[in-house]
Amino acid sequence: MDLPSVRSYLLDLQDRICAALEEVDGEARFSEQRIEGEQGAMSRPRVLTDGARLEKTAVLFTHSAGPRLPAAATERRPELEGHRFQALAVSLIVHPRNPYVPTSHMNVRFFVAESEGREPVWWFGGGFDLTPCYGFEDDAVHWHEQARDACEPFGASLYARCKKACDEYFFLPHRGEPRGVGGLVFDDYTEGGWDAAFGFMRSVGDHYLPAYLPIVRKRADTPWGERERAFQLYRRGRYVEFNLVQDRGTRYGLESGRRVESVLASMPPLVSWRYEWHPEPGSPEAALADFLSPRDWLA
Amino acid sequence: MDLPSVRSYLLDLQDRICAALEEVDGEARFSEQRIEGEQGAMSRPRVLTDGARLEKTAVLFTHSAGPRLPAAATERRPELEGHRFQALAVSLIVHPRNPYVPTSHMNVRFFVAESEGREPVWWFGGGFDLTPCYGFEDDAVHWHEQARDACEPFGASLYARCKKACDEYFFLPHRGEPRGVGGLVFDDYTEGGWDAAFGFMRSVGDHYLPAYLPIVRKRADTPWGERERAFQLYRRGRYVEFNLVQDRGTRYGLESGRRVESVLASMPPLVSWRYEWHPEPGSPEAALADFLSPRDWLA
Repeated sequence: MDLPSVRSYLLDLQDRICAALEEVDGEARFSEQRIEGEQGAMSRPRVLTDGARLEKTAVLFTHSAGPRLPAAATERRPELEGHRFQALAVSLIVHPRNPYVPTSHMNVRFFVAESEGREPVWWFGGGFDLTPCYGFEDDAVHWHEQARDACEPFGASLYARCKKACDEYFFLPHRGEPRGVGGLVFDDYTEGGWDAAFGFMRSVGDHYLPAYLPIVRKRADTPWGERERAFQLYRRGRYVEFNLVQDRGTRYGLESGRRVESVLASMPPLVSWRYEWHPEPGSPEAALADFLSPRDWLA
Repeated sequence: MDLPSVRSYLLDLQDRICAALEEVDGEARFSEQRIEGEQGAMSRPRVLTDGARLEKTAVLFTHSAGPRLPAAATERRPELEGHRFQALAVSLIVHPRNPYVPTSHMNVRFFVAESEGREPVWWFGGGFDLTPCYGFEDDAVHWHEQARDACEPFGASLYARCKKACDEYFFLPHRGEPRGVGGLVFDDYTEGGWDAAFGFMRSVGDHYLPAYLPIVRKRADTPWGERERAFQLYRRGRYVEFNLVQDRGTRYGLESGRRVESVLASMPPLVSWRYEWHPEPGSPEAALADFLSPRDWLA
């Protein structure tokens, strides 16, 4: 177990992702803060707002430490509840301006639980997922190819398992709707021991940019107007509903009194709710529901 | 216990409120649906959108019935969990267009739990609360005078108790902020027996229009521009956070699989989130935080 290596990987990942997103935006720059906490804890929230291509983007590094591991982090390891812990993570969300460019989300995280006279217990978690307003099969296939490539060196069935976990997690039960076209979700991950497990987390982190940037570049100059904008703002409502009602990380962040501006940095810059709105049958907007129904994108 | 009287009172209340809100808007009309369910259940959602003065307004009548009273309705009466029940309610929310006109919310409801060989157990609940973006002492005082008048015939301390319950309920713990200037909240209410308790619920329902309409009329023609609009959209974010994260009724509605378009009809039409935005010190926007700190408006 080598926490300093995880920390330096994640700090570097945040740097690389922010540099690449600034380059793809072409105009705006990330704000930066550094907030020091107790016991070596440190967070480095970075947010880019009102970019030419990226309307709002948050890329957060967090290293937290506490005397009691929260229940939200020990669902599958109840015996660790209440242990001293450290958690390191990079979380990001990109809300593009152009409605033809999908929203993306990525998170990679590391937990270690410690108690007197016992070996530390550690695990990794994370994943990435894509949320289009307008479905392009090419984009979804490319995204899932990168997801598969991220998993391939670590086990033949790993992509299939993480893809399924992603479809299950990013689902709005009250709407009966998937959030997007999915990607990867993994948690409580220790497979193959330290080197392999840390390697897998790095692989997921490293595959985010090659998965997302080509899609942004391909769609960013597609012409759009009021109609597409209205649909984008409407669809962002689903994103808010998911994050505030369903998302374990957001709810844990709010309930545990973490810095609220960081927890809610993922919220879209502008959102609309319309009562009983339904897209015109046969329209590109109406096609989204079918496009989002879970399928094997690499078949 | 006289359920048909409650039902006809609530249907009439919905009619009166919708007529008055259409009149104050001057242009838009409520949409209307009637959705019949099993065992006499019926809902009548009415939503007004894109009005001249009211940007989005939902006034919902619901009569529901079910084989098991939900836990959310029996917090203080755990012995009734799982009993057969009927619930009747009028719920409303008004999102005005002019940022100087406060958002208002009202709910009055009746529950009855039934089981074989026992007397039915019934109670009332509800209240109303006001959420300004720009604080006017006159408005808050008028609102609370009406709230006090609604309570006065039913007990000397009732206003004080319901006002305190409202301040406690409409609070965002993750922000450490009150939602608005409060008003009334009551629940599990049976005081004085059927006639008095039903009378109190009617009094709260009947005082909503005289509490709110004069404020709408007074502020609706105040000039406003981009700055006030931006602040309104930002403040509506708090409303969404409250409804999706905190509000018992909304969460119960989503979890129990009720008609999602009705449960979320309360969502604002347009909302923004800005990272780490703070109003300019000394500005009218900065004054809101102090204005909202709970106080005795009738002192």
